[in-house]
Amino acid sequence: MEERHVEIVERKGRGHPDYVIDGASEAVSRELCKHYRKEFGVVLHHNIDKGLLVGGRAHPVFGGGEVIDPMYLVVAGRAMTSFPKNGVDTPVPVGSISLKAIRAFLQETFRFLDVDRHVIIDYRIKQSSMDLVSNFQAGAGMPLSNDTSFGVSYAPLSQTERLVLEAESYLNSRKVKKELPEVGEDIKVMGLRKDSHILLTIAAPQISSLTPDLDHYISVKEEVTGRIKDVATGITKRDVEVCVNTADDLDRSIVYLTVTGTSAEQGDDGNTGRGNRVHGLITPCRPMSLEATAGKNPINHVGKIYNVLARQMAEKVYSEVEGISEVYIKVLSQIGKPIDQPLMTDVQLILSKGVTLHKVRGDVESIVDEGLADVCKISEAIIDGKILLF
Amino acid sequence: MEERHVEIVERKGRGHPDYVIDGASEAVSRELCKHYRKEFGVVLHHNIDKGLLVGGRAHPVFGGGEVIDPMYLVVAGRAMTSFPKNGVDTPVPVGSISLKAIRAFLQETFRFLDVDRHVIIDYRIKQSSMDLVSNFQAGAGMPLSNDTSFGVSYAPLSQTERLVLEAESYLNSRKVKKELPEVGEDIKVMGLRKDSHILLTIAAPQISSLTPDLDHYISVKEEVTGRIKDVATGITKRDVEVCVNTADDLDRSIVYLTVTGTSAEQGDDGNTGRGNRVHGLITPCRPMSLEATAGKNPINHVGKIYNVLARQMAEKVYSEVEGISEVYIKVLSQIGKPIDQPLMTDVQLILSKGVTLHKVRGDVESIVDEGLADVCKISEAIIDGKILLF
Amino acid sequence: MEERHVEIVERKGRGHPDYVIDGASEAVSRELCKHYRKEFGVVLHHNIDKGLLVGGRAHPVFGGGEVIDPMYLVVAGRAMTSFPKNGVDTPVPVGSISLKAIRAFLQETFRFLDVDRHVIIDYRIKQSSMDLVSNFQAGAGMPLSNDTSFGVSYAPLSQTERLVLEAESYLNSRKVKKELPEVGEDIKVMGLRKDSHILLTIAAPQISSLTPDLDHYISVKEEVTGRIKDVATGITKRDVEVCVNTADDLDRSIVYLTVTGTSAEQGDDGNTGRGNRVHGLITPCRPMSLEATAGKNPINHVGKIYNVLARQMAEKVYSEVEGISEVYIKVLSQIGKPIDQPLMTDVQLILSKGVTLHKVRGDVESIVDEGLADVCKISEAIIDGKILLF
Amino acid sequence: MEERHVEIVERKGRGHPDYVIDGASEAVSRELCKHYRKEFGVVLHHNIDKGLLVGGRAHPVFGGGEVIDPMYLVVAGRAMTSFPKNGVDTPVPVGSISLKAIRAFLQETFRFLDVDRHVIIDYRIKQSSMDLVSNFQAGAGMPLSNDTSFGVSYAPLSQTERLVLEAESYLNSRKVKKELPEVGEDIKVMGLRKDSHILLTIAAPQISSLTPDLDHYISVKEEVTGRIKDVATGITKRDVEVCVNTADDLDRSIVYLTVTGTSAEQGDDGNTGRGNRVHGLITPCRPMSLEATAGKNPINHVGKIYNVLARQMAEKVYSEVEGISEVYIKVLSQIGKPIDQPLMTDVQLILSKGVTLHKVRGDVESIVDEGLADVCKISEAIIDGKILLF
Repeated sequence: MEERHVEIVERKGRGHPDYVIDGASEAVSRELCKHYRKEFGVVLHHNIDKGLLVGGRAHPVFGGGEVIDPMYLVVAGRAMTSFPKNGVDTPVPVGSISLKAIRAFLQETFRFLDVDRHVIIDYRIKQSSMDLVSNFQAGAGMPLSNDTSFGVSYAPLSQTERLVLEAESYLNSRKVKKELPEVGEDIKVMGLRKDSHILLTIAAPQISSLTPDLDHYISVKEEVTGRIKDVATGITKRDVEVCVNTADDLDRSIVYLTVTGTSAEQGDDGNTGRGNRVHGLITPCRPMSLEATAGKNPINHVGKIYNVLARQMAEKVYSEVEGISEVYIKVLSQIGKPIDQPLMTDVQLILSKGVTLHKVRGDVESIVDEGLADVCKISEAIIDGKILLF
Repeated sequence: MEERHVEIVERKGRGHPDYVIDGASEAVSRELCKHYRKEFGVVLHHNIDKGLLVGGRAHPVFGGGEVIDPMYLVVAGRAMTSFPKNGVDTPVPVGSISLKAIRAFLQETFRFLDVDRHVIIDYRIKQSSMDLVSNFQAGAGMPLSNDTSFGVSYAPLSQTERLVLEAESYLNSRKVKKELPEVGEDIKVMGLRKDSHILLTIAAPQISSLTPDLDHYISVKEEVTGRIKDVATGITKRDVEVCVNTADDLDRSIVYLTVTGTSAEQGDDGNTGRGNRVHGLITPCRPMSLEATAGKNPINHVGKIYNVLARQMAEKVYSEVEGISEVYIKVLSQIGKPIDQPLMTDVQLILSKGVTLHKVRGDVESIVDEGLADVCKISEAIIDGKILLF
Repeated sequence: MEERHVEIVERKGRGHPDYVIDGASEAVSRELCKHYRKEFGVVLHHNIDKGLLVGGRAHPVFGGGEVIDPMYLVVAGRAMTSFPKNGVDTPVPVGSISLKAIRAFLQETFRFLDVDRHVIIDYRIKQSSMDLVSNFQAGAGMPLSNDTSFGVSYAPLSQTERLVLEAESYLNSRKVKKELPEVGEDIKVMGLRKDSHILLTIAAPQISSLTPDLDHYISVKEEVTGRIKDVATGITKRDVEVCVNTADDLDRSIVYLTVTGTSAEQGDDGNTGRGNRVHGLITPCRPMSLEATAGKNPINHVGKIYNVLARQMAEKVYSEVEGISEVYIKVLSQIGKPIDQPLMTDVQLILSKGVTLHKVRGDVESIVDEGLADVCKISEAIIDGKILLF
Repeated sequence: MEERHVEIVERKGRGHPDYVIDGASEAVSRELCKHYRKEFGVVLHHNIDKGLLVGGRAHPVFGGGEVIDPMYLVVAGRAMTSFPKNGVDTPVPVGSISLKAIRAFLQETFRFLDVDRHVIIDYRIKQSSMDLVSNFQAGAGMPLSNDTSFGVSYAPLSQTERLVLEAESYLNSRKVKKELPEVGEDIKVMGLRKDSHILLTIAAPQISSLTPDLDHYISVKEEVTGRIKDVATGITKRDVEVCVNTADDLDRSIVYLTVTGTSAEQGDDGNTGRGNRVHGLITPCRPMSLEATAGKNPINHVGKIYNVLARQMAEKVYSEVEGISEVYIKVLSQIGKPIDQPLMTDVQLILSKGVTLHKVRGDVESIVDEGLADVCKISEAIIDGKILLF
């Protein structure tokens, strides 16, 4: 990848409308998992991988402003709405769980979004259809794959990819939120590499109540630019150009100011599954799955599990096996088969100069076998919120 | 009234679905008034007198329970969505104000309703149409009547009416909520008098988490019955029969148990304007206005103001003029005319034995004139929440 | 009534927002009845007596115009969503039935409302709670009353009442729609009688596409005024003043023009149960029930049936028994008792001069007894749409 | 591509939930374009590239069945809601246009979906924000790019890709709908090639009312299988295995039966932008853009235009320049610059044996230059519905 002429990479950061609705879908799935397990001892079938965030209307002004029309957020999907407990069919408060999970997610994500006033939270989750449920429950021990689907990932990230990822995570870090509280959460980073030149285009809204005037806005923007250049120095020796809020027109006082920290307050909508892939990035020049990971159940939905699995195996192969330049892994499921027995696991290796396939094959195969054997650990880690999904 | 054979009186108490949606509409109106006044110095046009509360689905069990599907509450109407301030057209955050006002109202009303999980709050308020607005703003000094409408009320309340009113306010009093916290807020009282016998039918849900078992439920129900009988003793010498939760079937453990204190959690819906009239009661045997008072603007919406006015004047006439047995007052507006100049004020008096119209006429007229002259005080008192509207 | 000094009467005609949402609720109830009966042989429990019509935004212009934002119509309530058929639990397509019923109702009601473009139709109907259902089904033969409620009505209509009723029905008659197609369906008539003077205030929108200019508008308005005066001549000898569209300001070209024939296209909202009572009128000076008749099941919901029953009995008493000036009838139910056995039937008579109670008592009682015995015929007639409900 | 070991290709056919919501978004965009052009002479800013289709609940049975709960379809985005016409600000009936466009699209797409009963159509489209609009309108002659974005495509399609594409288009062809009307529209095809073996997995619902019994179902399924094998013969010499409705369990009578022809009637939801890319396929092993093409304005939204452009140029290069095995094209925009002046156009060529870059370079560059010069023709073709977008 580093040798190609052109590379395009994007990250829709925490606070981006597509990220937010992904986050809402996933929050509901995780809280359902916890409730199912607590009440019934097992995770039950669900799939909340659709959603819509409709942007509101806001009136940010230097030093203040307000949300005029709240955003509207709805998640959609299917879930088991009742299940036997001690022999009695017991309802699952899917609605209450959903509202609470989304509310908590929004409160964790934003500092200046007042969920009570700025968002209408809705859900449209219906009873799972019985076909899906019977497949879901059939696996004794190992869950059965819910679908014919696949996961794909690779390692390592390129410099441009790491740069995009770290630029956003830096700007949304606790440290920067403390030192530059004006910077909102809806950070979007686009990286374009042409040979040895990298252009980082960053959209970073500022919180209107913390930004008293245009001068202040400009100084924060400059500070962001400078800091990201420093971040870049630690990642690449290439020439990195950083552009922040390129749509600004300072003469006409058109700047990227928000009341809440997200562009969803005014004009931007989001759909589940339209944001980052499982490595936190959108990488159109690389193989990508179009499946949404957000909101799918982490037990047997291979569109979620196999993407994470592919990524974990690829990273392990790259970091533990010497002589690997790049590794791409695809895992294909077979509907109704145990998830540790995929139809196919395809590993493509780009070896370092002088390394032969013969030399690395055994180690790679071991890592893949081990990854499959441990696939259920992924479910646990997802429920615990320990895995990057988007 | 006391001499008629039959009397039917009803009160849908705090917590009843129709009361709740009335309360939501009115809360939005009041907060809009405050915002308009604070931002622009005057109350602007609005009318939020429509609404719908869709009941949820709940699973109350002795000692616990949960709301499965949240309720859905939406208010509808029109409001000024922007207005000039210091020469600049300034938006009004109608959405944020509405969500916050409804939420606060619900939190004040219920002890066991968790607004975060149990209710989806929505609004459908559009820009006021310009015709209404121009009429609204035209009044220099005295507002102009928004419509051809009328208000009607009377005094005094009959014994049965007072009994119904006080039974509910007693059960929803701070004192009783402390002593009998099991009693939910959705108290509905129906009073039927046949000659000298009064039947009070009371629906009073119990909070499931505070009611460990059927015995407890029964004892609370008995306590409620006893206490209401005591309340009745202070109001009437008639024979009062009190029936609580008549739909219970104790043998089959069918009881009136709720998680949140309102029947809206399961099966009962509400519409704005379908509950109590301006004296807090539904009195089909008396003249009644069908207008919703809830949510109408208190400045020039005569469907709201004139009902309150009629009630205040009737009470004053009854209490201050000697020799009045009953007084009925109707006030009719004329669209576009100042609200202190109604088209007609009709006063019907039932005089005590031996009293002549001649004797009371002057006093009654003074009270009516004064009431009209002071009509704008009603607007203030409504905004401050000091007036019973439903 | 004719001897009182003041009388206030109102009718919200076909096309008025409150009428429309009443009509939608009732249409759903009727189609559910038909489906239940066809599929299961009996009408099942339902109650669709809540609803909300949110007005749209329109841009009517002389000779044309368009609806910008559609109206939004939602009905709410409860219904049996499945029932055994040949031993198999069979689902009831409540949603499909509701959408279709409302659409058909709107198409019958309006000539210029394009349901495909001008209305969003929604429903929020949930499964009936089991308590209500068991009561509903328990009646072998005679249905059991669903609630403690009552109906009230009277006969005859006063001249003012007849005038209000016939003015609207004339303007919405097939004949007038043919001769004066410009007149929209949202006719609202307010009648105010002061002694022998009757003021009829009529709001009658005109269809913008059929009204090329202001002159045309004025001429149609004059035609309406003249025709209503003619109608009045046939009903009363009193002095009748007719005012049409009093909010017009012809100098500023502010006129009552609509694209679709209803004010709901711009700015006016509606709630179920807020319109006419069971005689087609709002009569605040008469006893009135606040219950919505629209949408309630016609089998055991006494808030619907008893209002119709009271009206039918009152009319029969008035027309068949000689010597009756006015008759008021109240019928009170007792929850859980057969609906032909009300708790009380209260008949108040105002007799013509010289007539004694003794003389009419027998006939009146026969009519009442017969009415109760035949109460189930009311259910049939309601399902067949043969009874005025609002 | 043909030489790689593994290939994965998918098509969500007409009738698939993701396709349907893509189609709805695009239908709204196209009708807005037509309205804007007709009323104002130019296409105005809009972006309707978000949407949600919430599946309903259905009860298909052999020979019949019904939709119980309708689907719910909502599109979201921004559009110009008014614009000057002859000097007067004129509203755009965005709502009416949207409802009508979606309805027409659904009626064209399905034979057995009754839009009146089976779908609730909604929209949440707000006024475009002024920043976007000013950029949109600034271009004199050539539109200015709305965003920093890119398009990517390639040619030729591999055998597997063609097979997947043609299998669906065959089953949804007018001919097959006539000969095998039982086959519903929601055809999903997944193609997996491992070396020289291709597995085609096809999901093809049957229309319940046309499928009297299990035997009939099975025979139609076999017919489909056989016909697709024939289709395959015309495309590839590889070994093709065809599996239809693999989730069927014939012993338990679990089959893929639908009332309407789409799985959205029961359990499957859709989001705009989650379906096929601009060549009609999902091809995770190839470079892909994650941008939704559906619903974006075709004038300056490069996320839509450049994907089509890349595809058209790639196909032309492949078919007109001799000696090209494969061509990949990426086009990168620069926000605010004319769309015929992208920041970069990257062409990757895989040449046939013996062909040198030198030989083809000129021809390829000509095609690219011409493509850019003619970029506005793409807008026209999209508005006319002449271009495959998903």
